[in-house]
Amino acid sequence: MDPASFRLYAHQVVDWIADYLAHVGDYPVLARTQPGDIRRALPAQPPRQPESMQAILADFERVLLPGITHWNAPGFMGFFGITGSGPGILGELLAAALNVNAMLWRTSPAATELEQVALDWLRQMLGLPEPLFGVINDTASAGTLYALAAAREALSDLQIRQRGMSGRPEVPRLRYYASQEAHSAVDKAGIVLGVGLEGLRKIPVDDEYRLDVAALERAIKEDLAAGWRPFAVVATVGTTSTTSVDPVPAIAELCERYGLWLHIDASYAGSAALLPEYRHILAGCERADSFIVNPHKWLFTPLDCSVFFTRKPEIVKATFSLVLEILRTDEEAPNLMDYGISLGRRFRALKLWMIMRYFGQEGLQARLREHIRLGQLLAQWIDEAPDFERLAPAPFSTVCFRAHPRGLDDEEQLTALNERLLNRINGAGHYFLSHTRLRGRYSLRAAIGNLRTSEETVRGLWRELQEGLEAERARRS
Amino acid sequence: MDPASFRLYAHQVVDWIADYLAHVGDYPVLARTQPGDIRRALPAQPPRQPESMQAILADFERVLLPGITHWNAPGFMGFFGITGSGPGILGELLAAALNVNAMLWRTSPAATELEQVALDWLRQMLGLPEPLFGVINDTASAGTLYALAAAREALSDLQIRQRGMSGRPEVPRLRYYASQEAHSAVDKAGIVLGVGLEGLRKIPVDDEYRLDVAALERAIKEDLAAGWRPFAVVATVGTTSTTSVDPVPAIAELCERYGLWLHIDASYAGSAALLPEYRHILAGCERADSFIVNPHKWLFTPLDCSVFFTRKPEIVKATFSLVLEILRTDEEAPNLMDYGISLGRRFRALKLWMIMRYFGQEGLQARLREHIRLGQLLAQWIDEAPDFERLAPAPFSTVCFRAHPRGLDDEEQLTALNERLLNRINGAGHYFLSHTRLRGRYSLRAAIGNLRTSEETVRGLWRELQEGLEAERARRS
Repeated sequence: MDPASFRLYAHQVVDWIADYLAHVGDYPVLARTQPGDIRRALPAQPPRQPESMQAILADFERVLLPGITHWNAPGFMGFFGITGSGPGILGELLAAALNVNAMLWRTSPAATELEQVALDWLRQMLGLPEPLFGVINDTASAGTLYALAAAREALSDLQIRQRGMSGRPEVPRLRYYASQEAHSAVDKAGIVLGVGLEGLRKIPVDDEYRLDVAALERAIKEDLAAGWRPFAVVATVGTTSTTSVDPVPAIAELCERYGLWLHIDASYAGSAALLPEYRHILAGCERADSFIVNPHKWLFTPLDCSVFFTRKPEIVKATFSLVLEILRTDEEAPNLMDYGISLGRRFRALKLWMIMRYFGQEGLQARLREHIRLGQLLAQWIDEAPDFERLAPAPFSTVCFRAHPRGLDDEEQLTALNERLLNRINGAGHYFLSHTRLRGRYSLRAAIGNLRTSEETVRGLWRELQEGLEAERARRS
Repeated sequence: MDPASFRLYAHQVVDWIADYLAHVGDYPVLARTQPGDIRRALPAQPPRQPESMQAILADFERVLLPGITHWNAPGFMGFFGITGSGPGILGELLAAALNVNAMLWRTSPAATELEQVALDWLRQMLGLPEPLFGVINDTASAGTLYALAAAREALSDLQIRQRGMSGRPEVPRLRYYASQEAHSAVDKAGIVLGVGLEGLRKIPVDDEYRLDVAALERAIKEDLAAGWRPFAVVATVGTTSTTSVDPVPAIAELCERYGLWLHIDASYAGSAALLPEYRHILAGCERADSFIVNPHKWLFTPLDCSVFFTRKPEIVKATFSLVLEILRTDEEAPNLMDYGISLGRRFRALKLWMIMRYFGQEGLQARLREHIRLGQLLAQWIDEAPDFERLAPAPFSTVCFRAHPRGLDDEEQLTALNERLLNRINGAGHYFLSHTRLRGRYSLRAAIGNLRTSEETVRGLWRELQEGLEAERARRS
């Protein structure tokens, strides 16, 4: 595509996007297509001849758009509300146009150095002490795997990188720990590492879904006595279901006592530490060996951008570094491919840097504070309503709750009622909520994190929830 | 950023990109900054107040651009020449604007289904038989890890997913095989999986840098006799150094005989199979269990887009699937997060689909054919020149060679001469070449894969090489 054509079509695409973003609230949030609809609407064979960009863009709008779930919608409150903000989209556009691979310093010095600068800015915003080495991965799932791989590498007497784990009587069964509320990425890492699902011991949580430290210590002692070799603990700051914050200082204490790698999964809630009044959620994290926060979750950055910080970059590098002759260079500069699996690395720092500058620290703080205010408002309405109940604390902007009409105490019926309520809300098109299970109870879950979500949006949700419950009453009577 | 501001700034960015792409050949290909230059030019502290997009874009151009190595330049022939083509950039822009996460079918049906359709188109273009399940990962490094994880999972008697590998006398040492020329991602996968570097047995190559099948069979037999449990072979179609093609049919034969998972790394050269006259390079690949080709390498797709195909999706899913309650859905549709580590998945299929339509199969073929023609032309000039020599066959568009003046046969001196020649070329700013080592000999390496590279570009490189050698002669005399 010559530059003139690029200019022409790119301007068209920009106008389309600007219109889309202005009206994103008008689409049904959750796509209404059925499985196979989109597939059937597309040709089964690839085109032999070139097609016009007009035809391609027309099909994008006609065929694909109806199958899009609008994560940009103000009413998107499923999983975690996210926003691909304007400066972030422009950062992605520039990165795609430059198309550099930040694998080695020399393959794009600006990408490597901006990654270091932008992550040091983020470190300062989060109030984490120097020195802290940062690198961007696609997802926290990858970062969690890298953290646990490094934790295993830190068992240097076992020489696992060189010799592997099986068929060696001197390598004991390895164990790591996380709460029952930790993300499935923690389990997946164990599968991949060959530690196995049994290598992860899930620790019970307290009433507020936080890891029970006494239970953790008992587990470690039991495992040591039974011949396991404990090697890591994953603590979560903002669990997936209830956004609970594990007691990191006490966990850090245990990790130091037993010589375990401490990894912190703050993918979602870490961003809240930008607020001085929430800085305390990272207490103890300065003692962690590794730490993840995802700007693509709650820092208005388009997918994907997961920040991995470590106090032990030399161990992470010792885990992963392996350099082909073709990639050998002699500059005194870090080559970021050495800190993980992926050799190909997009210029992800650009969008993050543009976002931090465009909003500024205070602008980011104002928006996070507003999301938390909206979450607390919803929590308060639920608490005050006789026929709804909250099922967990809401420390940030995510609220777990259910309808619980007076007199209806059968758990199966409550589950069925709330499932219908969820389907009604999600089917109406203005909102998308997820569900979870908390101590066996089916819970609705509203996660506020989109920059377009306003108090009016949250009021509208509350109205639809109440109307939904009214409809349920009418149904039952 | 409100939609009006987005429109304003995005149009500015588009104009900048169109100008940049029109003049990308005018920049020094390899950035000329020294380590730390970019970092020092940026503030050490994050901005407290918002900054204007004008200021941000001005700094992008003033501070960052000089530190960019221009992978878009016609003279970029390092590693592998790549192109983020116009339709691909537009696909990235739309994907960033939609900002959907294709983790579950329902979180974006169009993204999930387009991924299936686009990859089936690609399968057809490559001439691979149905059924073949496809999924897009960020990089081949991730896909190679997933393939080998699935290969290990296929050893179902060992129950490694559940129970892990260590401290279990019934789990033997595991071994997998690849040639000495295989990519370091193959080694890295073994590190992560806990199979260890010793778990990978490197097989010698023949005169053309292709895996020696007889040596592979001997190795398997030896390992079986010594109590190892072989589980996989990685064959490469287009090795990193010399783009050699391993003899896949014979390797597939062995894999079937010994019950080993066959994984094909066709990251770079797989795309050449779009050409009927190169279809033969994938002979035997229809028998592979998994197969990787990277459209971000030689199919004009911006980073990142690595396609993972498998004939055994049920085993890949059994390896990785693990579903949190919050992610539980009941549609009869694949959830692509089940086929790897990463939960967050960008809408990468969009750019690939736009590229396949914009160029059409014939348009893609014409461009691949031209790149191969240019590579062969360079190879021919080198072969005909008395003072240069080719160091490996050039089956595609990548040429390994060195200057070898008559009478100069000292290997150390030849290495020093060619290093100086490489530094001269890379320092002059018009070209970027990599180096490699082939049977101990230092080799220059030119990889043609950019859509802007023309015969004139290649002629210019040849001229600079000859001038460089002249300068060396002058230096010596």
